[in-house]
Amino acid sequence: MKIHIITIGDEILIGQIVDTNSAWMARQLNLIGAEVNWITSTSDDEAAIKHALGNALLDTDVVLITGGLGPTKDDITKKCLADFFEVGMVFSEETHARILRLFERWGRSPTPAHKEQCFMPANAVLLKNKMGTAPGMWFEHNKQVVVSMPGVPVEMKYLMEFEVIPRLKERFQGKPIAHRTILTVGEGESRIAAKIEDIESSLPTSLKLAFLPGLGQVRLRLTGRNSDVLQMNRELDDYIHQIQDRLKEFVFGHDTERLEEVVGRILRERGLTLATAESCTGGYLAHRITAIPGASDYFLGSTVAYSNEVKQKQLGVKAETLEKHGAVSEATVKEMVRGALALFGCDIAIAISGIAGPDGGTPDKPVGTIWLAIGNKDKTQTLKLQLGKDRKGNIKYTAVQGLNMIRLFAG
Amino acid sequence: MKIHIITIGDEILIGQIVDTNSAWMARQLNLIGAEVNWITSTSDDEAAIKHALGNALLDTDVVLITGGLGPTKDDITKKCLADFFEVGMVFSEETHARILRLFERWGRSPTPAHKEQCFMPANAVLLKNKMGTAPGMWFEHNKQVVVSMPGVPVEMKYLMEFEVIPRLKERFQGKPIAHRTILTVGEGESRIAAKIEDIESSLPTSLKLAFLPGLGQVRLRLTGRNSDVLQMNRELDDYIHQIQDRLKEFVFGHDTERLEEVVGRILRERGLTLATAESCTGGYLAHRITAIPGASDYFLGSTVAYSNEVKQKQLGVKAETLEKHGAVSEATVKEMVRGALALFGCDIAIAISGIAGPDGGTPDKPVGTIWLAIGNKDKTQTLKLQLGKDRKGNIKYTAVQGLNMIRLFAG
Repeated sequence: MKIHIITIGDEILIGQIVDTNSAWMARQLNLIGAEVNWITSTSDDEAAIKHALGNALLDTDVVLITGGLGPTKDDITKKCLADFFEVGMVFSEETHARILRLFERWGRSPTPAHKEQCFMPANAVLLKNKMGTAPGMWFEHNKQVVVSMPGVPVEMKYLMEFEVIPRLKERFQGKPIAHRTILTVGEGESRIAAKIEDIESSLPTSLKLAFLPGLGQVRLRLTGRNSDVLQMNRELDDYIHQIQDRLKEFVFGHDTERLEEVVGRILRERGLTLATAESCTGGYLAHRITAIPGASDYFLGSTVAYSNEVKQKQLGVKAETLEKHGAVSEATVKEMVRGALALFGCDIAIAISGIAGPDGGTPDKPVGTIWLAIGNKDKTQTLKLQLGKDRKGNIKYTAVQGLNMIRLFAG
Repeated sequence: MKIHIITIGDEILIGQIVDTNSAWMARQLNLIGAEVNWITSTSDDEAAIKHALGNALLDTDVVLITGGLGPTKDDITKKCLADFFEVGMVFSEETHARILRLFERWGRSPTPAHKEQCFMPANAVLLKNKMGTAPGMWFEHNKQVVVSMPGVPVEMKYLMEFEVIPRLKERFQGKPIAHRTILTVGEGESRIAAKIEDIESSLPTSLKLAFLPGLGQVRLRLTGRNSDVLQMNRELDDYIHQIQDRLKEFVFGHDTERLEEVVGRILRERGLTLATAESCTGGYLAHRITAIPGASDYFLGSTVAYSNEVKQKQLGVKAETLEKHGAVSEATVKEMVRGALALFGCDIAIAISGIAGPDGGTPDKPVGTIWLAIGNKDKTQTLKLQLGKDRKGNIKYTAVQGLNMIRLFAG
């Protein structure tokens, strides 16, 4: 089953809101074997809506429209649909009665606009919307289906879950589809691709592999499509294992997991506590770690040692070390680790010092030179990064590398 | 200037990622008087990309494509573009040299895929991408423009800002348009609107006011469109002053300034130093402050005191205070301020302790209860927030309130 989603609303086209509805709808539709082939965003304008609808119906089974319904603006969308299907508008007594009941419950009185809202294209099958006043509308057109829903997320989600998806399931039987994602960190996209080239070329036609690069991380998404669900899952499992075995320690998790979540789980399982000592990342690594609910189980705190005095006084970095090697040096981050272990009484400490940019570099240590160290009472490991001049990017990339060091050190 | 955005990538159509690029692009384009009329998302598939491109060119001046470029998958998009424009592929020595330099700096060696990446459609004008290996491409087609950019947000944003927008501005000249934005913090959208209702209704037709609410902040954008540039600027100045005079201390800056930038400027001008003591925000406030280049001039550091032991040992919060009032209390944040002033030897310290959620609340102190305190050697001020259950939102909103406290305290 092929699906085209149309989202109606100027607020998307001027960038005032991000369209999160489409991604949610796509995930739900994938679960029943339906494939979203297009997403189109168009303005609250009659000609644009008609053009989008006509275009969508050229090559699809189902068109799902969100937005453009509601007490202040549903006229345009409903009028477009009625014109498109060449039908008139009829008054829905059922909708009117439901709106009156809703307002009674809210203890308020409806406006004239709410009565207007009860006029519907004559060929619409109304879909009950328990979350708002505007019902969904289901249209059959030749062998195609067009559905119109309000754009308010809770209303759209209610209609999808209880009205639209059950009907689509009954009507169309697609080949089941499944996605599995392997999450990697610490190696670039092209090197990951080279390492698994032979596995990729041996994939059966029922499986498809996609590389999705991010900052310091690459996700590998394997998609299966097969009428035999057992076989599909077997194939997916088999290839997921093959790829994981090949990529080994670069793999940190699956699907929608976040690196800081995985790090937290490892620390909690091992019963280890952590502290950070941050200079150039300025608390961003601590923020990533504490963005996970329950982080207080393993995270004790951080010293953001932005000035050299704080490095010395609180973390015990020696004046000679700073003088001889500088604040951005292997020697300094090693002493920061020792200092943080003592100060926080934690099992593992990680330290970062670098030149985040865009200025502040020297010929010896250009902008983007960043040192990391991690240690426990027995040992310390270090890592040097040589990044670019983008301060924000450098801070984020360094935090990802730091999280990965914690994962490998504690794991 | 009419614009059609095409985003390429299965990850959007299966709902794995939400398309945030388009909204960002739309906002930037609006600022130069360009209008996004359509956004289309399509899959990594040759026929689909060509269909989308052909369709887009039917009724637009500019097509901006994101996604489908990168070392493992740029073949399809570039091949589609070359086919579409009926040109061959040529090897770009310049791109190759740039990739080699990048890899040399990273201390790694490129793979064969990176060499493949240097082949470009013969009619492409290459746009320098300092954030990644794949350059942007600019095509002229009849009187229309097609631009292709990688989908990785930092790369797309760099290309838009430094290459695409300046070229579009030069090429298309509409009626002169100017935007001025007043930035406010600490008051909600509807209250701000009520305060300036009379000013808004007195605006001449050549000026338009938009309210852009954000987390704890509301931006007021005044847009002028007038063939008489002098008059436009005079009117803009006049109304900007009227609105500012009315909103007084809620106004913290203009245009694209960030609150943390303004805070940094005030501290630098006053010659004051700052430290933070953070519990529930976990270093996020320090991160916001240190995201600004040169923050080391006024920011000394932070103690992220996630555990109570750290609050006591490092910040000197008394055991009795924690026992009697709890870690989330006015008494605790006041002691954290005193502790941070002593520990960092700074002029101003700010402290935060709260229940970020989603769990951990009690009937007395529900999730979202957050205390802030700010002080110098002479005085301390406190603020209590009662927020919702969204951990991420609570952390970010609290940081904005904290920055605003610093602004008002130091200013």
